[in-house]
Amino acid sequence: MRDVRMKGFAERADVEEVEGFLTRHGRVLAAESVELLASAGRVLAEDVRAEVDVPGFPRASMDGYAVRGEDTFGASAYDPIALEIVGRALPGHPFSGSIGAGEAARIMTGAPLPEGADAVVMAEVCAERGARVEVGEPVAPRKNVGAVGEDVAVGEVVLRRGRRLRPQDAGLLASIGVARVRCVRRPRVALVITGDELLPAGCRPDGARIVDSNSVVLRALVARDGGELLPFGILPDLADRVRDALREAAEAADVILVSGGSSVGEEDHAPRLVSELGTLDFHGLAMRPSSPAGVGRIAQCFVFLLPGNPVSCLCAYEFFAGPVLRTLGGRSRAWPHRRVRLPLARKISSAIGRTDYVRVAVEQGRVMPIATSGASILASTVRAAGCVIVPRGLEGMPEGAEVEVRLYDEEATAEDGS
Amino acid sequence: MRDVRMKGFAERADVEEVEGFLTRHGRVLAAESVELLASAGRVLAEDVRAEVDVPGFPRASMDGYAVRGEDTFGASAYDPIALEIVGRALPGHPFSGSIGAGEAARIMTGAPLPEGADAVVMAEVCAERGARVEVGEPVAPRKNVGAVGEDVAVGEVVLRRGRRLRPQDAGLLASIGVARVRCVRRPRVALVITGDELLPAGCRPDGARIVDSNSVVLRALVARDGGELLPFGILPDLADRVRDALREAAEAADVILVSGGSSVGEEDHAPRLVSELGTLDFHGLAMRPSSPAGVGRIAQCFVFLLPGNPVSCLCAYEFFAGPVLRTLGGRSRAWPHRRVRLPLARKISSAIGRTDYVRVAVEQGRVMPIATSGASILASTVRAAGCVIVPRGLEGMPEGAEVEVRLYDEEATAEDGS
Repeated sequence: MRDVRMKGFAERADVEEVEGFLTRHGRVLAAESVELLASAGRVLAEDVRAEVDVPGFPRASMDGYAVRGEDTFGASAYDPIALEIVGRALPGHPFSGSIGAGEAARIMTGAPLPEGADAVVMAEVCAERGARVEVGEPVAPRKNVGAVGEDVAVGEVVLRRGRRLRPQDAGLLASIGVARVRCVRRPRVALVITGDELLPAGCRPDGARIVDSNSVVLRALVARDGGELLPFGILPDLADRVRDALREAAEAADVILVSGGSSVGEEDHAPRLVSELGTLDFHGLAMRPSSPAGVGRIAQCFVFLLPGNPVSCLCAYEFFAGPVLRTLGGRSRAWPHRRVRLPLARKISSAIGRTDYVRVAVEQGRVMPIATSGASILASTVRAAGCVIVPRGLEGMPEGAEVEVRLYDEEATAEDGS
Repeated sequence: MRDVRMKGFAERADVEEVEGFLTRHGRVLAAESVELLASAGRVLAEDVRAEVDVPGFPRASMDGYAVRGEDTFGASAYDPIALEIVGRALPGHPFSGSIGAGEAARIMTGAPLPEGADAVVMAEVCAERGARVEVGEPVAPRKNVGAVGEDVAVGEVVLRRGRRLRPQDAGLLASIGVARVRCVRRPRVALVITGDELLPAGCRPDGARIVDSNSVVLRALVARDGGELLPFGILPDLADRVRDALREAAEAADVILVSGGSSVGEEDHAPRLVSELGTLDFHGLAMRPSSPAGVGRIAQCFVFLLPGNPVSCLCAYEFFAGPVLRTLGGRSRAWPHRRVRLPLARKISSAIGRTDYVRVAVEQGRVMPIATSGASILASTVRAAGCVIVPRGLEGMPEGAEVEVRLYDEEATAEDGS
């Protein structure tokens, strides 16, 4: 039997120190070409400059009649001016003729303004009489006409690099004829899930064997943060297998998430192997839960050692891996949670020098810490509305103090009403 | 030439009236079976009850030694009690023997507690000497042991219907052996995009032909709201083609979004066809932009007539179609935007009786309405940080008034910092 290293960590790094390290080593991945229809939610790697004017032609912005404005000067409801209707212009069906003096063409919103015309008079102030239209109001040249380039002008930078594309941004790109956009590549994420006791998700727990739930949580978090998950399997707690998996992952991925085998116990191979293949920059953190978490690098790849306990795994991901993933993808490193500030219904105890991740419920507008007996209680994060971070400088937070809750639900729920 | 109906709407419905109608007719779609790994973000259609205990066995919650608690009573650092080490227990590798009086087994966090033992004494208070361990502290029975069902008990409802599954919810479902979950079906959405002037997204605008940008925006909004977009093509402005498309869509979809041809102009077939195939409940709304929008139903299917102008299309979607889509999918009908309250840098003019959707920038903590010449300026929604709704009871909002901005960005941007 090998020596059992079960005595914990000699020293523990501060959360801020690890965050600072990750911020310093953060970088944004290179660009790739993305199809326009897949671009919403992606981050632009380059400025986009319009190569066309929008509109590309003078365009009616009202339903009515295309006219030469000066022909209508002096018109009034009592003394309308009659113009001869010589054609019509519809979107996609321009009037091919020209509007001469004393002439008009019916025109619909969005249609190209015919040659010769310089204004649109609204249908509401006109009356058709046979082949003529009586115009009851003067209209100045350029009135009710969208000028060429009014929406977007050739050469204009319409969207800047770093922009996370909104639905309407993708629409604007479509309107200027863009087919593909240069976006920041999505970070590729490899999961290294180890544990002889683990059955794959979808199985029933069986005797001493439990179901791997961490990869299920991580899969959803990685998707939220814009990462692309590489295929993976569950590994036995065998150093050689874990080493091979880490080596392969470092070649294929930008980020490796190791779940399980990350502490200092005898079956915890990952820390040693990360040191061997790269650097283990931090291992053992002054936080609760997740104190056995670690951060390292193998070549260009970030490695996060996430404790096997489900809540620790979630917590360590949110503090360290999530910000890195979002940074790599060109997004904000900030936690994406909605936040509310509410008073504490009961005090939170912590310790100076330690950062705490406290699951809380929100009851009648007050924040209630959820008492749990340990980090393994995934159900606590299910019952909780969100979490409160107690920074290392505080001993805790007193009852009544206003605290910031990071909400687990991405949006208001149906029960919240509108 | 047919009679050109270009005189606008006889009367316009209030936004609230339409919202009330849609709320009354809202329903939640039926359940479908969803694979666990695809369940995050989906809405539960049924309560989920645990069919197993988690943990399913008494489990070490610390690294240390599995003991009979009473054997340690009286132990102290000065006067430790020595126990014989008879085996070890690891996660996935239980100790198959039994712990008798005076015996102990090494145990790692997560491992099943061996038969006979009732507590775990922390490694930190123990010292191994050859085949024995000296225990320096008494440990009470059940100490450092996770009891059967401590996380989840058989029969417990772990998640209630209506819950939008968080990452950790999916993890919890995995841990109780769930392979598939009953979720609310995602609403199927058909797009009916009409316009002789339209080229498909990805093309360059060409002469009088412009690129269909609305379907690009709608595709992203439908994805945001949990809908499933059915395949579609761009239709010419021909009544028969639009009728066929509506009829087909009503059979396949829960929601039809009609973009273009929805006003009262001569090429605007959709309103008449919706009346013919079903009911056109509203057409012409007291709002700006989007006044030509309409709402109807064909059989069980909701139909939204979205104006062709890009900003009107976006606005009408957000007011009417988005809430219905989310309701059908079991989510909150509320707009999903993050909201901030900030003072107005300049007054907003509106009119009593009309609801306005005003694009705004946020500059130095103040809200600046974006002046635009018309609804067609999609670029305005790109430049804007969000929108402000001016309800119909107000003539406008004065400079300095605190207003609620619905932000277009789903999360803080990289520029905002953390």
